[in-house]
Amino acid sequence: MNAPVRLAGSASLLPGRPVETRPLVEAAMPGRDAESLAARIGIRTRHFADPADTVARVGAQVLGAALADAGLPATALRRIVLVNSHGGDHPIPATVNALLGEMGLHDVVGGFDLNNACTGFVSAVDAAARMVATGEGPVAVVVVELLSRWISPAQPRSYVVLGDAAAALVLTEAGGPGALLAADFGNDARKLAAVTLAHGAFTGADEKIVFGAPGPDFFEYAVDGLTTSVRRVLDRAGMATTDVDWWAFHQPNGELLDAFLSALGLPEDRTVRVVDTIGSVGAASAACTLDRLLATRPVRTGQTLMLCGVGAGASRGAVLLRVER
Amino acid sequence: MNAPVRLAGSASLLPGRPVETRPLVEAAMPGRDAESLAARIGIRTRHFADPADTVARVGAQVLGAALADAGLPATALRRIVLVNSHGGDHPIPATVNALLGEMGLHDVVGGFDLNNACTGFVSAVDAAARMVATGEGPVAVVVVELLSRWISPAQPRSYVVLGDAAAALVLTEAGGPGALLAADFGNDARKLAAVTLAHGAFTGADEKIVFGAPGPDFFEYAVDGLTTSVRRVLDRAGMATTDVDWWAFHQPNGELLDAFLSALGLPEDRTVRVVDTIGSVGAASAACTLDRLLATRPVRTGQTLMLCGVGAGASRGAVLLRVER
Repeated sequence: MNAPVRLAGSASLLPGRPVETRPLVEAAMPGRDAESLAARIGIRTRHFADPADTVARVGAQVLGAALADAGLPATALRRIVLVNSHGGDHPIPATVNALLGEMGLHDVVGGFDLNNACTGFVSAVDAAARMVATGEGPVAVVVVELLSRWISPAQPRSYVVLGDAAAALVLTEAGGPGALLAADFGNDARKLAAVTLAHGAFTGADEKIVFGAPGPDFFEYAVDGLTTSVRRVLDRAGMATTDVDWWAFHQPNGELLDAFLSALGLPEDRTVRVVDTIGSVGAASAACTLDRLLATRPVRTGQTLMLCGVGAGASRGAVLLRVER
Repeated sequence: MNAPVRLAGSASLLPGRPVETRPLVEAAMPGRDAESLAARIGIRTRHFADPADTVARVGAQVLGAALADAGLPATALRRIVLVNSHGGDHPIPATVNALLGEMGLHDVVGGFDLNNACTGFVSAVDAAARMVATGEGPVAVVVVELLSRWISPAQPRSYVVLGDAAAALVLTEAGGPGALLAADFGNDARKLAAVTLAHGAFTGADEKIVFGAPGPDFFEYAVDGLTTSVRRVLDRAGMATTDVDWWAFHQPNGELLDAFLSALGLPEDRTVRVVDTIGSVGAASAACTLDRLLATRPVRTGQTLMLCGVGAGASRGAVLLRVER
């Protein structure tokens, strides 16, 4: 069933300061050749937020920019979904409250926090589009990941790839062909240990993001999971890969983005590579990709756009949109 | 706009062992009269989960019961929304994955974790109903709150009221009059400090749930916030309070439930009191109330039901349903 919706505005930002891959490799993997590792992971630089940055503050900033792009006042919003993977600024109350407080929006919009690891933005766009389609728009989806707070040289594999980023998307009632055409999601606990961040309050330890045993296993799952979601969505929409004009992928690293493109037989100009300059930014990755697509490519009303991701959980998901801008 | 949906199945459970109010008052407020305090807060007993209970394990158990009530296999689900206020079992991956793992459901259903403090169940039912209405049903909403893990005699006001509970609701495509008729939500950061649980990883402390400065302020907000949501929903639906057959309230304590009924001019037999025997159980409160209503009262297809809550954030929300069972 179609869910009519328009992509009214979008924005993304990188908080704090840029950090090159080299000093991270030197700190976490002494003796390792930083240049060749950076080339293999496809990440030259990423941002680390400043100590004063919070999910709420960065989220308010990027949502303000997306609202400006949409030409809407913040008071026009009916709902806001805040996506974050690391527990936000605080569990109680939900961090979305603090974000609204930063914007001075008191009791004029309702929201909640959503977590589905790297697939969270895809889940949130799906939920938000269905709110708009049933009369509850405009809805904003805001993603903020401050993953630099959860890394350490003691966990080298996450330390050299993760970074901080934020993005926001404003969805409004369709007036033309805009719609969410089909969606598919799956969560698979057999891969529960692939990427983890434990609850420090339970473990009593200063927990960091841990990548499970290395090897082809999770790499293969990531490609299989992402392409499974994509193929199911295409089946539901009665379309082929070649019918999709634009692709916004979750980009965990350059190698996996290449593998996604290769598995789907897509030329790189159907998407936009962001991972080389923003790093692996959790749920913000697909959101930043979508924002960069909308900002820098000729994405036009009536075209189709696939938003797809895979991540910790394992979680996978894809939504196919008919674009209305 | 109506969002057609059917209430196909429901369940609730109290994990662990019952704990009377008296020993908690003796531990946290020595010298205080336990009997009169229990009478004032309207809570005689609540459950504290066993050490082996996790959000995932308790959630799988209550979802299994709700699916049995609906007569549906777990594999029929398309989506699952897991509601929790205290950060789940772990931030990465989302706890919904572990819940699905406990049920042996691998990559057959997609889900995410949702947090809007005590209003989380109302938010999740709203989001889930809109998924079902746009073709993505059946959807299960599962709430698990293990608040006993986050209390201490050093914080007496939260210690003597909070408890553990879980509930699940299965929503399917409507075949009759079932629908979500109207909804309203608001989040207000001016009350950010009323109820808090800080992120221990940021503070370096063993954090517990803290109730802010006592006084009439938050009590009045709770009544105002809840009745604001209810009145807006009734306005949107073109109905009066007397047009609503059944009410499922968030019940933070007995005094506030009485105040909600009084402010809305409702007799108590339009709802079901649960707080006296389950305590203050966060987002699980409205969910347990709804389950007890459906299980013990003559709630019939075609009748109307208001689900409403208020809580930390501050957050408030209400959805009006036309019942189809």
